[in-house]
Amino acid sequence: MSSLYGKKIRISIFGQSHSPAIGVSIDGLPAGIRIDIAELRAFLRRRAPGQSDLATARAENDMPEILSGLAREITCGAPLAMIIRNTDVRAADYAEMRDTPRPSHADFAAHIKFGGHQDAAGGGHFSGRLTAPLCAAGGICLQILRSLGVSIGAHILQIGGAWDDPFDPVGVSVMDFETIRNNPLPTLRREAGEAMRLRITDARDKGDSVGGIIECAAIGLPAGLGDPIFDGIENRIAAIIFGIPAIKGIEFGSGFAGAALRGSENNDGFYMDGENVRTRTNNHGGILGGITSGMPVLFRAAYKPTPSIGIRQESVSLARAENTYIQVQGRHDPCIVPRAVPCVEAAAAIALYDAWLDR
Amino acid sequence: MSSLYGKKIRISIFGQSHSPAIGVSIDGLPAGIRIDIAELRAFLRRRAPGQSDLATARAENDMPEILSGLAREITCGAPLAMIIRNTDVRAADYAEMRDTPRPSHADFAAHIKFGGHQDAAGGGHFSGRLTAPLCAAGGICLQILRSLGVSIGAHILQIGGAWDDPFDPVGVSVMDFETIRNNPLPTLRREAGEAMRLRITDARDKGDSVGGIIECAAIGLPAGLGDPIFDGIENRIAAIIFGIPAIKGIEFGSGFAGAALRGSENNDGFYMDGENVRTRTNNHGGILGGITSGMPVLFRAAYKPTPSIGIRQESVSLARAENTYIQVQGRHDPCIVPRAVPCVEAAAAIALYDAWLDR
Amino acid sequence: MSSLYGKKIRISIFGQSHSPAIGVSIDGLPAGIRIDIAELRAFLRRRAPGQSDLATARAENDMPEILSGLAREITCGAPLAMIIRNTDVRAADYAEMRDTPRPSHADFAAHIKFGGHQDAAGGGHFSGRLTAPLCAAGGICLQILRSLGVSIGAHILQIGGAWDDPFDPVGVSVMDFETIRNNPLPTLRREAGEAMRLRITDARDKGDSVGGIIECAAIGLPAGLGDPIFDGIENRIAAIIFGIPAIKGIEFGSGFAGAALRGSENNDGFYMDGENVRTRTNNHGGILGGITSGMPVLFRAAYKPTPSIGIRQESVSLARAENTYIQVQGRHDPCIVPRAVPCVEAAAAIALYDAWLDR
Amino acid sequence: MSSLYGKKIRISIFGQSHSPAIGVSIDGLPAGIRIDIAELRAFLRRRAPGQSDLATARAENDMPEILSGLAREITCGAPLAMIIRNTDVRAADYAEMRDTPRPSHADFAAHIKFGGHQDAAGGGHFSGRLTAPLCAAGGICLQILRSLGVSIGAHILQIGGAWDDPFDPVGVSVMDFETIRNNPLPTLRREAGEAMRLRITDARDKGDSVGGIIECAAIGLPAGLGDPIFDGIENRIAAIIFGIPAIKGIEFGSGFAGAALRGSENNDGFYMDGENVRTRTNNHGGILGGITSGMPVLFRAAYKPTPSIGIRQESVSLARAENTYIQVQGRHDPCIVPRAVPCVEAAAAIALYDAWLDR
Repeated sequence: MSSLYGKKIRISIFGQSHSPAIGVSIDGLPAGIRIDIAELRAFLRRRAPGQSDLATARAENDMPEILSGLAREITCGAPLAMIIRNTDVRAADYAEMRDTPRPSHADFAAHIKFGGHQDAAGGGHFSGRLTAPLCAAGGICLQILRSLGVSIGAHILQIGGAWDDPFDPVGVSVMDFETIRNNPLPTLRREAGEAMRLRITDARDKGDSVGGIIECAAIGLPAGLGDPIFDGIENRIAAIIFGIPAIKGIEFGSGFAGAALRGSENNDGFYMDGENVRTRTNNHGGILGGITSGMPVLFRAAYKPTPSIGIRQESVSLARAENTYIQVQGRHDPCIVPRAVPCVEAAAAIALYDAWLDR
Repeated sequence: MSSLYGKKIRISIFGQSHSPAIGVSIDGLPAGIRIDIAELRAFLRRRAPGQSDLATARAENDMPEILSGLAREITCGAPLAMIIRNTDVRAADYAEMRDTPRPSHADFAAHIKFGGHQDAAGGGHFSGRLTAPLCAAGGICLQILRSLGVSIGAHILQIGGAWDDPFDPVGVSVMDFETIRNNPLPTLRREAGEAMRLRITDARDKGDSVGGIIECAAIGLPAGLGDPIFDGIENRIAAIIFGIPAIKGIEFGSGFAGAALRGSENNDGFYMDGENVRTRTNNHGGILGGITSGMPVLFRAAYKPTPSIGIRQESVSLARAENTYIQVQGRHDPCIVPRAVPCVEAAAAIALYDAWLDR
Repeated sequence: MSSLYGKKIRISIFGQSHSPAIGVSIDGLPAGIRIDIAELRAFLRRRAPGQSDLATARAENDMPEILSGLAREITCGAPLAMIIRNTDVRAADYAEMRDTPRPSHADFAAHIKFGGHQDAAGGGHFSGRLTAPLCAAGGICLQILRSLGVSIGAHILQIGGAWDDPFDPVGVSVMDFETIRNNPLPTLRREAGEAMRLRITDARDKGDSVGGIIECAAIGLPAGLGDPIFDGIENRIAAIIFGIPAIKGIEFGSGFAGAALRGSENNDGFYMDGENVRTRTNNHGGILGGITSGMPVLFRAAYKPTPSIGIRQESVSLARAENTYIQVQGRHDPCIVPRAVPCVEAAAAIALYDAWLDR
Repeated sequence: MSSLYGKKIRISIFGQSHSPAIGVSIDGLPAGIRIDIAELRAFLRRRAPGQSDLATARAENDMPEILSGLAREITCGAPLAMIIRNTDVRAADYAEMRDTPRPSHADFAAHIKFGGHQDAAGGGHFSGRLTAPLCAAGGICLQILRSLGVSIGAHILQIGGAWDDPFDPVGVSVMDFETIRNNPLPTLRREAGEAMRLRITDARDKGDSVGGIIECAAIGLPAGLGDPIFDGIENRIAAIIFGIPAIKGIEFGSGFAGAALRGSENNDGFYMDGENVRTRTNNHGGILGGITSGMPVLFRAAYKPTPSIGIRQESVSLARAENTYIQVQGRHDPCIVPRAVPCVEAAAAIALYDAWLDR
């Protein structure tokens, strides 16, 4: 078992990079919710490739067809299934890729796990392309959450060593999310995006790649979501976020930096804001004991640099059990982080809406 | 639902800080495995308080009684349940704590979630004391994993800004784990432990606390454990690690630092080591596409500083809805990180043994 | 994995017939519910042995100790764990039973499954004694359901060919449940109980045993509980009911008899009863499409005759792989059906309360 | 949550009777298994309508398109997803059906559960049409089980009071399954099928319908599959079988009849058959303590008569809250039992293969 997530809603993702289609089934959506298809498509375009000169030029039309779960654009209580056709289905065997695993890709681990039967073409089920159905499911959860007063936004905090400003942990707002979406790269400061662009193009020109950090905020959540110990909001978000390829770290609130602070520095004092209890600071990232505090939920996810690079690297021939080299051919994203921003929002939305339903 | 973890084995943790007992049931352990009770007790003593001058002096005998699951010290296929009596059961109402939430504790979130019915005494189900049954379950998994050739060890990487050496990502060995266990504080370098001790005592003397980072390694795992997307090893470990109170971040391999590297720097080239495929470096932390690569699994967890401090902090009276102050009385660990090292090992063992069984 | 049930609440049962204790953890109970311990004990006494001349005389005090989950007798949101000590813990190896499986007991299947490591004493984890923690968990769910206006009652419909009257499918009421509890055997008609008693004592006198059928009703449930396809109320009840040893069949509403009817006979026409939609008849057993209709939920469970009999039967020596005979010694219930009535109520209560929470 | 089943494999069914498509995702299939598409289509034809004069004439092409999970017709370890297009997608609102629930259909319960937002057309997600993806998933499990030496077959035991011979509980064989498939109706005795046909046509001619009983056997299973208490083979099979619309009862082995026997009659003595332990009789239906004994697994499922009949019945107008009548128009199966035989085989195959993987 592998590609399911959730407790009250169950997201079941299927497909390979070059199978006839990829898709997702969402089981457990409440009935009676209007889904705005146009808005869903707009959200998915933020992830789609070919948006800029920075991303792969592979021609994709990642717009999903909704197969079930709606009656006149309103959820009917049945599972909502969507598929996206792969227009680029290949008969080729990818024999070489099967034999010579790409460093830091899933190729080798998949080869061992599936006994050589994995669908090696384009990364198969491990392809970043599988984030398209994740975004489709998350896009629906984002719509529903917004109708409940919850907004989720993310931005690039760092690419290749160039940094954006972080969110204001207590004051992050919907206006920040709009600013991000209006910038050429999803950053708070436009100039930060420009600096990142230079890092990306520089890496690309050298056949290399860069990673980065995405910061995500959810605002408007009530206090009291999440459960103790293993079903806390941190556990739930982490369990889905690591489902996005290339993510190797996550931290909430002050996270790793907070680990070097003293309690008197890191603790977030409470105060009354009218009738609401709030905290002066938000080093806890909106989560106490696994449960939302009513402050913004804040986390950061670390992306490793795209492993596909045009530079010669050491590898092995699995069939001959001997050392060799590999130089990955063709088009590759020198940096997936810009396109990954909506993926992080989508994953957070799924986790938080599931926690909402699981109260 | 909250306090269950696992797919093939199911860990169900119960208890509150001052309920008659705390405990754990482990469902799904294979039959026929000899459990070494003495070794389990030795493992649990590494977590127990009162080991040094750094930890709380609360008198606890955290040795579990095994209620079921064994027949003549061998697992019999039935759930293995263990309980630890709370000798310090209090009738008092903790009325003040219930009214004035401690900053950065679970008090406030639990109050909202459970409508004021939470067991506030000593943190209730959110208490760090609940890591005792987690360690009991993990101690059993550690024994079983070792019989399968897998060893897990952790050390303090940082406390209060004082750093130990990191593990050698490709060469970490059982000898390192022995070194750590023979040092006064669980560090690779004895002097690092001394520096950490000074940070802890300095904080304690000021009524303050410090956090830290624990690094954990699992060696001897075969390639091929874990599943794609949502059931990867990262997802599985993160989902249990965030069940340990006070952890606010986790990263695998090069993690957040790797996010600033280029692909050519972060990628781990393959080579043949005799008949085995290995990688020259281990920035991937032993996990590719969510699946073990056969290299050491490596991760780091960030602990926030203990929120219970003897310094006056801002808080609110929930009943009167007005601002107030709180100064936490009594004994508190100025730093839980040293005692948390076996907790991280235990959690990793549960996740990895579950993944082993779930092949 | 084996001994867990539920979606919103998770029942985790542990223990063996002769382990130090048996018990149950209930994860996911809402906070703020007062548990009446005296009432729970009264419910459990209905299952306890030694109540009459019909049941085994094994001295048991099946009253549970509550270890966690309550604060001042009110649920606090943490898992509620209970244990019952086995006063009759045996060191003996039950070597003979391990070698010569009792016909129609779990002995042989457990031997194969657990590779000879099963706890053979008294049936181990397969013992009917494990219905004590099931009843403890169910007794709590019964209390909560009653506060929500839902009552559950069961009676013996048949033992050894002697029949009680069935429930009135549309008119079954709390008064029926009281009648049942006031009769010496749990039947609607006192004389039916007398006839059953004769069948039981006759079987007992011959060293033999009898089975029977229990009918259960749940009244006061709102329409709309349960989910389509695999999470229907029938699926949920069946999935827990077959967790009670010796049950080999279940039917809802008209069940197997309905399979011989025509649609015009079996269909239940709707009509308005004031503002409520009701059905004239209740062949659907209160469940349509897996979802409650608001009519009484009705099902019957078939118990096989107790397999432990004092008559010589064919068996095999597993060690010597040769035919032999077995004659089960000691005290045995000639019929477990009377004591099983509260078990069926308990199981139904767990399933229905879980479905209630899982709306 | 609703339409998921399984532990090691996870079946996620989606679709409505008149949504663009219906389908299924199977997560957790091992890699490296060749799927015979032609054989799968042949299996699905056994369920498809329009096979005989007894079934609805609705023109359907229920052959699935495989979207993912295969690489060159071999499972690749990724979820296997299949869809079946609904050629008969209707824009109509089924407004009348939405207002006047059909007796003994899911209409009313779905209306309450989904607040009037259910997809009422053709029964929506509750339609018997959803057994097509169930059969597609089960057809794949049947193929895999056969390669493991396990065969599953079912026949009509009773329709409208006409009975076939039951399986020989100890001697049922693959030849029986072939006999069944070669008869015009799936029965062991051809003449039994003829008698059933008369009952069906007689009911049809009166605008009425009939139910029936299907008996299913699985042979070749090793001893030791299944788990104690809640994950026994009975629990697992029942939990999926009640996912088939119209099933209202299930019994294993001697089932309800066995409840009237004595232990000495119902117990199945063991004997050595060469090196294998077998039982003389098979009243336990191949399952002891929830675990397979190595004898044939045997169960019977009771189908209620099809609720859609052409006879006027009592119902209510939900909008006007008043009594009315309904006479269901159009074509209807007077009996779904013949077409349901492969559905029962498919459901049993999914449950048993899942239990096999979950050893």
